[in-house]
Amino acid sequence: MTARSIPKATLGRIPLYLQYLKELPDESNVTVSAPKIARGLSLGEVQVRKDLALISGCGKPKIGYERAKLMADLEKHLRGDDLTGAVLIGAGKLGKALLDYDGFEEFGVRVLAGFDCNETAIHISKRKSVYPIKDLDAFCAQNDVKIGIITVGQGSAQEVCDKLVACGVQAIWNFAPCSLSIPSNVLFKQENLALSLAHLNSQLKTKNKNKCED
Amino acid sequence: MTARSIPKATLGRIPLYLQYLKELPDESNVTVSAPKIARGLSLGEVQVRKDLALISGCGKPKIGYERAKLMADLEKHLRGDDLTGAVLIGAGKLGKALLDYDGFEEFGVRVLAGFDCNETAIHISKRKSVYPIKDLDAFCAQNDVKIGIITVGQGSAQEVCDKLVACGVQAIWNFAPCSLSIPSNVLFKQENLALSLAHLNSQLKTKNKNKCED
Repeated sequence: MTARSIPKATLGRIPLYLQYLKELPDESNVTVSAPKIARGLSLGEVQVRKDLALISGCGKPKIGYERAKLMADLEKHLRGDDLTGAVLIGAGKLGKALLDYDGFEEFGVRVLAGFDCNETAIHISKRKSVYPIKDLDAFCAQNDVKIGIITVGQGSAQEVCDKLVACGVQAIWNFAPCSLSIPSNVLFKQENLALSLAHLNSQLKTKNKNKCED
Repeated sequence: MTARSIPKATLGRIPLYLQYLKELPDESNVTVSAPKIARGLSLGEVQVRKDLALISGCGKPKIGYERAKLMADLEKHLRGDDLTGAVLIGAGKLGKALLDYDGFEEFGVRVLAGFDCNETAIHISKRKSVYPIKDLDAFCAQNDVKIGIITVGQGSAQEVCDKLVACGVQAIWNFAPCSLSIPSNVLFKQENLALSLAHLNSQLKTKNKNKCED
């Protein structure tokens, strides 16, 4: 069977389902129904059924889901069997914020270390170290690094990307505001923080414009 | 006429169109066709036509788009007639990285200042200042603040959100990893950086699993 990739929207709801199930009173039944979950999270019933069918086989018609089993399946899906190793290149403010963020492990990724070409950014600590970029090769050879996170400026993003690909990473998460040329066998995700804000702003303007015209 | 909100995916392509048009050689024709743009950006022709129809009325059948007019329309759409004012609450690493980021103005939003309850984070400068949270009320009253960005921890996010709503902001962009209760007339966008990474990781695992099974 070919494994299915879980849609991003579904992935985003996994933590909500898990939180809801965790917060149910202990005295509640051992099973929980899709309509109950849907009401609790203000979601559609069909959506809940579809989401949970992708993640767990523990749903039964007219009975619902075994709460404990569903929680275990959701957690397993979030964390995976093992954490995927990642490195981050560019320890500026955003890079440091991402290095410090612990929430990635809940989603199955461990950022192992940061790298920077600026000597003042180098910082070896017990927690997340920032190493000189020249050590990237050796680090990737010694650790199972599958994901490279790029938080350098636009000017050096392609060079950094090429280095990561040469070190064998299988996926790139790029915060630099530019497109990158990468081999087709490497997965690529462009992040643009400004885009979410632009979308919010566009909705706001549309709303205010419609209000004026009412 | 009711103004239409531009879909997020289209918004995301506006900077690409603009960059492509800017980089065309000066000696090229004054008009540019949808197929040419589509080839240049590896997009579908239908998509290009749809996107540009939402933004500009300068396309003509069999002729194409007037390059200068199209660029002006794209720029106007990105920047808007005027910048929307925003404030940010929580000047930790992520907050500081966002305060420092200039790219938001390209998308029509100016982050005017940051606020924090931690005295050591307070920092008044010519560029972006971080003020004590107690000054938020007065700042919003004196400036036209429409968007509030929340970069505090989960524990104080709801309190900060309530403060922002009381100050009259019309939209909230929340980076705290929790849902917030807000009035229905306030727009809301939840940001979850871990989600993009989780999605990339999920694709990676699916790909590797399928490879093993081939």
